[in-house]
Amino acid sequence: MTEVYIGGTGMTRFGRHPGQTVRTQAQDAVREALTDAGLEAGDVGMVFFANAVGGLITGQEMIRGQAALRNTGLLGVPIVNVENACASASSALHLARMAVASGSVDVALAVGSEKMTHQDKTRTFAALQTALDLEQLDDLAQLIGGGEETSTGVRSIFMDIYATIARQYMDSSGATAEDFARVTVKNHRHGELNPRAQYGSRLTVQDVLNSRRIVDPLTLLMCSPISDGAAAVLVCSDTAARRIDARVRIRASVLLSGRDRTVGDASAIVRAAQMAYEASGIGPDDLDVVELHDAAAPAELAASEDMGLCPPGDGPKLLASGDSTLGGKLPINPSGGLLAKGHPIGATGCAQIVELADQLRGRCGPRQVTGARIALAENGGGFLYHELADPAAAAVTILSLERRGDG
Amino acid sequence: MTEVYIGGTGMTRFGRHPGQTVRTQAQDAVREALTDAGLEAGDVGMVFFANAVGGLITGQEMIRGQAALRNTGLLGVPIVNVENACASASSALHLARMAVASGSVDVALAVGSEKMTHQDKTRTFAALQTALDLEQLDDLAQLIGGGEETSTGVRSIFMDIYATIARQYMDSSGATAEDFARVTVKNHRHGELNPRAQYGSRLTVQDVLNSRRIVDPLTLLMCSPISDGAAAVLVCSDTAARRIDARVRIRASVLLSGRDRTVGDASAIVRAAQMAYEASGIGPDDLDVVELHDAAAPAELAASEDMGLCPPGDGPKLLASGDSTLGGKLPINPSGGLLAKGHPIGATGCAQIVELADQLRGRCGPRQVTGARIALAENGGGFLYHELADPAAAAVTILSLERRGDG
Repeated sequence: MTEVYIGGTGMTRFGRHPGQTVRTQAQDAVREALTDAGLEAGDVGMVFFANAVGGLITGQEMIRGQAALRNTGLLGVPIVNVENACASASSALHLARMAVASGSVDVALAVGSEKMTHQDKTRTFAALQTALDLEQLDDLAQLIGGGEETSTGVRSIFMDIYATIARQYMDSSGATAEDFARVTVKNHRHGELNPRAQYGSRLTVQDVLNSRRIVDPLTLLMCSPISDGAAAVLVCSDTAARRIDARVRIRASVLLSGRDRTVGDASAIVRAAQMAYEASGIGPDDLDVVELHDAAAPAELAASEDMGLCPPGDGPKLLASGDSTLGGKLPINPSGGLLAKGHPIGATGCAQIVELADQLRGRCGPRQVTGARIALAENGGGFLYHELADPAAAAVTILSLERRGDG
Repeated sequence: MTEVYIGGTGMTRFGRHPGQTVRTQAQDAVREALTDAGLEAGDVGMVFFANAVGGLITGQEMIRGQAALRNTGLLGVPIVNVENACASASSALHLARMAVASGSVDVALAVGSEKMTHQDKTRTFAALQTALDLEQLDDLAQLIGGGEETSTGVRSIFMDIYATIARQYMDSSGATAEDFARVTVKNHRHGELNPRAQYGSRLTVQDVLNSRRIVDPLTLLMCSPISDGAAAVLVCSDTAARRIDARVRIRASVLLSGRDRTVGDASAIVRAAQMAYEASGIGPDDLDVVELHDAAAPAELAASEDMGLCPPGDGPKLLASGDSTLGGKLPINPSGGLLAKGHPIGATGCAQIVELADQLRGRCGPRQVTGARIALAENGGGFLYHELADPAAAAVTILSLERRGDG
């Protein structure tokens, strides 16, 4: 198999953008990625288009990518529409890498675009609920409590799940609500340095704890926001990468689903990390910068353990050490993470890669991790009944900066 | 790249099955495919799950495959949810082949499952509409006429498109409504011989012409029905195929989207056929049996020209010759095609492959094409504004029966 590189990246500023659509955002991100790579639409051999909830929010199913990319010069090649909840875009990236690695095409495009805001908020929350197995919703509600009908008639169990996972994590690690608040403080501070982040400010732990209570122990600022946005990554063969002097190499891309295959095994997130380390020959100690899937603040702490960045149970300690803050030994979520950068769910997986490729290429200005050469992204999506902390889809990607002539 | 084989296939009987769900159907088809192959769930390295309108009909988006395959032992490996309108399942097959050809896995599963019937019929028709670019619906309605609100309030333009394409084809080939009716007569006669077909009977041309008028020139029996069903294909590396003695080889799998890249080019269907013939070294004259995407009767005639089975404009003549009827020189849609076998849209691409693999393995009983060794499937999905006959996604697959030791 050929080595695979990132040829160029693009993304929109995440946020609430009533004037934007899945299409306009996708086209903006793709245009930027093509310009970044110095490639034309005609160079792209295959497209993987990620979107998670468009069918329920905009109504467009079936040909989302073809509709979003019309009149760009990209149609004509194979376009596959890919969905995997909050891991949709890293699933697209995984397939783009496979398409290039297999020799099928020289350049493949992974693009995720999501429009989550809707004038009817209940529509957004109802759509998010489909990250669960709907047939098991009643059982799940009974298992974890919650899922009461709200005043607007939506039976929302989504945040109850995050809260349940948070409480499970508190039990296993001794983490407190203050620890979760500190994740938010760090990531909003990072977000302030990222012009494409939805939020960013200097919050205090107390600000976070005092924000609106969602489901105990989670407050509003411990949860990633509702966002619109798109991100695009051009994946290139070694030959194409040499032509355009692309130097960020994909060292490993692992995608897995959660159990049932081998109940009792580690979660898909842990297994994906182990497989990515093994495939790349890179270990946690080699990493310079990391993006983790902090859909809610506790998830960053749990994921830092799952990635082997600290011993099990030491997530809060790693955070308290300052190592994961910009300027520290191993900055986590320099982009602001999902908490501050925003979380347009079908775009997030590619947006993590955009940040890491920018970090490796030294383009991050005030949030630059000095001398970063090796990076890891962790992206998870969807929930499985009985095994809430084991996502329906998990992806771990490892990137490195190569100097041409390195070997 | 390794050679790629079909290890086993399975499908449910297509039809209106109020007791079945996307999940139960998918599991039935997968179980049958595993038994056919002599493989266990644990042998499968990657899963591509196709479904086109579940988000709108059942409400389940985001993790359709993980939800449908729970408790099968298949979870744990990468599962990617794939959507490409009526070409969803052939897109899944295309990726399964790529996964095996790239050496990533030894066995990949492509499965399509669709539940189209719903107690509220308008929901089914509204979902079908999303095979169009919804942003362009008004322009499209103006372009082709139609799209009036029905008494139930649904603004249905879907069948107007099929009718427009039918009229365009009548202009280019001289085909008549009687010719379209003859396609239905042939395919329902074939369907009568297929125990998994939704319909099958001995109709007369007059029966078809006299059935309820949909949009001129199309009558009800010239349109594929609303169906529930699933189909599964296990794709294997050469090594795995030898172990289980699988002998149906995938000689070519081409997936494309329709224009805009090079407006004026041939349609994606024609380009896909040309690429598949070139990749396999197989030509139209080598084919023994063919499945074409007869979502409406005229499409079979047009596709027989697009595949080079007859000269342009000679679709009606080929049909009249009897060559495309079972017993003829090159039987088309021996399964009954979409018209009689049924068309659960996200399953259709795999169902075509199930039929052809069965034909090549001599398992088709009274509808067996004697001595069939080389087969072609054509599958299309979605519509593009201004270029209605150029689908949003088109797939052409060529299969051959190999004798071990052939080389």
